[in-house]
Amino acid sequence: MSFGKELNLTMLTDFYELTMANGYFEGGLQERIAYFDIFFRKIPDNGGFAIMAGVEQMIEYLDKLKFDEADIEYLRTKGIFSEEFLQYLKKFKFSCDVWAIPEGTPIFPHEPIVTVRGPVIEAQFVETMLLLTINHQSLIATKANRIVRAAQGRPVMEFGSRRAQGYDGAIFGARAAYIGGCVGTACAIAERDFAIPAFGTMAHSWIQMFPTELEAFRAYARTYPQDCTFLVDTYNVLKSGVPNAIKAFNEELVPRGFRPKGIRIDSGDITYLSKQARRMLDRAGFPDCKIVVSNSLDEYIIREILVQGAKIDLFGVGERLITSKSEPVFGAVYKLAAIEEQGEIIPKIKISENVEKLTNPGFKQLWRFFDKESGKAIADVITLAGEEIDDTRPYELFDPEFTWKRKMVTNFYAQKLLVKIYDKGQCVYKMPDLKTIRDYCREQVDTLWDEVLRFENPHTYYVDLSVNLWQLREKLLAEHIVK
Amino acid sequence: MSFGKELNLTMLTDFYELTMANGYFEGGLQERIAYFDIFFRKIPDNGGFAIMAGVEQMIEYLDKLKFDEADIEYLRTKGIFSEEFLQYLKKFKFSCDVWAIPEGTPIFPHEPIVTVRGPVIEAQFVETMLLLTINHQSLIATKANRIVRAAQGRPVMEFGSRRAQGYDGAIFGARAAYIGGCVGTACAIAERDFAIPAFGTMAHSWIQMFPTELEAFRAYARTYPQDCTFLVDTYNVLKSGVPNAIKAFNEELVPRGFRPKGIRIDSGDITYLSKQARRMLDRAGFPDCKIVVSNSLDEYIIREILVQGAKIDLFGVGERLITSKSEPVFGAVYKLAAIEEQGEIIPKIKISENVEKLTNPGFKQLWRFFDKESGKAIADVITLAGEEIDDTRPYELFDPEFTWKRKMVTNFYAQKLLVKIYDKGQCVYKMPDLKTIRDYCREQVDTLWDEVLRFENPHTYYVDLSVNLWQLREKLLAEHIVK
Repeated sequence: MSFGKELNLTMLTDFYELTMANGYFEGGLQERIAYFDIFFRKIPDNGGFAIMAGVEQMIEYLDKLKFDEADIEYLRTKGIFSEEFLQYLKKFKFSCDVWAIPEGTPIFPHEPIVTVRGPVIEAQFVETMLLLTINHQSLIATKANRIVRAAQGRPVMEFGSRRAQGYDGAIFGARAAYIGGCVGTACAIAERDFAIPAFGTMAHSWIQMFPTELEAFRAYARTYPQDCTFLVDTYNVLKSGVPNAIKAFNEELVPRGFRPKGIRIDSGDITYLSKQARRMLDRAGFPDCKIVVSNSLDEYIIREILVQGAKIDLFGVGERLITSKSEPVFGAVYKLAAIEEQGEIIPKIKISENVEKLTNPGFKQLWRFFDKESGKAIADVITLAGEEIDDTRPYELFDPEFTWKRKMVTNFYAQKLLVKIYDKGQCVYKMPDLKTIRDYCREQVDTLWDEVLRFENPHTYYVDLSVNLWQLREKLLAEHIVK
Repeated sequence: MSFGKELNLTMLTDFYELTMANGYFEGGLQERIAYFDIFFRKIPDNGGFAIMAGVEQMIEYLDKLKFDEADIEYLRTKGIFSEEFLQYLKKFKFSCDVWAIPEGTPIFPHEPIVTVRGPVIEAQFVETMLLLTINHQSLIATKANRIVRAAQGRPVMEFGSRRAQGYDGAIFGARAAYIGGCVGTACAIAERDFAIPAFGTMAHSWIQMFPTELEAFRAYARTYPQDCTFLVDTYNVLKSGVPNAIKAFNEELVPRGFRPKGIRIDSGDITYLSKQARRMLDRAGFPDCKIVVSNSLDEYIIREILVQGAKIDLFGVGERLITSKSEPVFGAVYKLAAIEEQGEIIPKIKISENVEKLTNPGFKQLWRFFDKESGKAIADVITLAGEEIDDTRPYELFDPEFTWKRKMVTNFYAQKLLVKIYDKGQCVYKMPDLKTIRDYCREQVDTLWDEVLRFENPHTYYVDLSVNLWQLREKLLAEHIVK
């Protein structure tokens, strides 16, 4: 059993999906085949890339899609849906094809990261939940990956449940953080259901429950001699917390043959306190005792305190990770890319008053080019589906906006990134386990150049269009300009 | 049936709640009575107040608190819990007293907004979920209230499901937004389960599914003549969208005796477009056709475009409301305030390297003073539980930090804000329905002075301590200073 697995979230949908569905039904368009893409426009925190996540929960949602009696009853009360349509919903069964980029993959703006093809009512209806799921987990995986990279090899734990935006903000947030590279979580249910290692020791209240800090430490050490990390900032880190921790280590652990695990500092000047604490622990004969810190950390603070020479072995990151505080929205959208008429694909484009809201028309595939020598990712190319890329020959990339910017690539191999996960409503994708996704994420991030990875002014990774797709877009643009 | 009602979220807890619980159990402290307070330290967006929300979900959680076989099995695999403790968890039943401030009430920093009293294992254990629930919904209710106030009487709809941080980020977010003053939501499940009015018309894809925008509008008007709002920015608002909307209104609605409901603009220069669109609609004989806008709105943008004279009748607010984008964390904490020894209450304080992390000790009550004449809220006073406030006599308020700041209040009445919701594990609180909470919220916000309501540099509302509580805090502080 796993959290949320039994939930039917069919009705977690924007109401307009239902008014449109009924409209298509009334207009006799319910069998019209449509193609929708999910893509995003801007990388959170001005980063160089994002991390795809949420595919597993998207599959769980699609597998259970079903209008039950209560849903139909509710819809009937609205008084705007025809009885025929309500009967149609009763029998509603998802029959679309779906392609998605595997979880853990670095993704870039304007790339199709999910494509849904099928009868327009179905393909349209799933918009809200697909976006919600992919937006949420990609946001947190992306943020976690930034924080993990800032920690430069030191483990990062996800500590944010109490500040998450709702239950699955906490649970699926912990899942996404693990994909992004966290070593574990404080959230017990995330371990029970997703096998994400959960850790935890004590709150300040534990200390306060005892007459003195030392007695609190002793009691804890007696219960957990094998896993003893003390929270040392309840009264005063250097004058009370660390000395008492050392005393308790010496009294309760050493005589019984145990070594201390660590101390945790949750407030104050982390750099100063960690350096002093490190010195005190080393002098007391505990150089193996780790220093854990937690207190409104994020990638910027972690980078800063490490530059200052803070002595930290493990970071616990809470609210700023679990809400992606500095940028709490991953703005992926769901846009019509094509329809079919008599089996022929008719590409569609969305113009807008805002230029960046322009869409890439047609049924598409996404390719990643890797340099054969270094293994590094060179560029992504969006093509029309069915186009092949011959990676035995040089390929000319060109910028879709500034087409004079061109680059010939050689000695590369090209990999398709969109994988089929549903075939006519049947899931055909075997979800990798979470640990595998996490490893894959690390490997894939390693294929990016340092210039793409950096936090400040990262290099804009090339996402180019094939000549065919670019020409199609130009043609549709010209047709749609309203004079 | 209602979303999430059947979920057992017992294991949605920080792992340290379990290590501490086992520690108390091993140390024979499981019957020790403890008092914990929830309070927050900082109002999001530098506002003048926050809105309490989430009590209903807190109750649902507490009512279902139970470790099932799978939970026990999982905990056993950790290898650190005694079998006696696991047996204890099997029989675990929440038996605490709980007090909370009713949903919809304006709340201020450092006030106890929830108090839990009971055996320390139980009272400690519920920390994570109580914080998660109250933090999330109070965050969104507070943000919604800001946005609704910025709209100056124009209705605000919650539109954010697709950008919410998880499923209940969307659903309970819609609930909290409604408490804060939104008139409705785009989220269908929020109407099915919470009777929050849900609305929705069409996406850009509806327009694109038809050969022309005009045909798309006509088809929609034929299906929904009684509720016809067109999205007018798919191609060009003023050259295409609005003229086609007027044409479709005239062709499909007017002859059948219907009036148009509205047009929606989702991109571009909202102020300019809305003014022009208003003029065009008025001239075409549709002064009653509403203009709805939605596009990355929040309280600041709404205020700004209204100052500029935008002609808007209804706002749809998405991502910046559902994630409280400008400040996505409501930082309430859960701190030990007292324990009992032989039936006597022993107050506890938490000192910290960070001054603002100081806690108010003891078992407390919160009072709000209202001016009898104006009905306005004058100040809140935190007292020890059992203290009475005689509002027939003048009362001297004093600032707990700058104690020379004093103010004598007269002609007031004092109201207790903390209400008992659990008595020995039994819920004794009758939840008001959501509409009642929303009305109460509006009334209570109306009791605040304009100076507290404003967005920039709001007046800091007085939250003072009774003389008894202040003296107790000073005494404990003096005792705990580490020299």
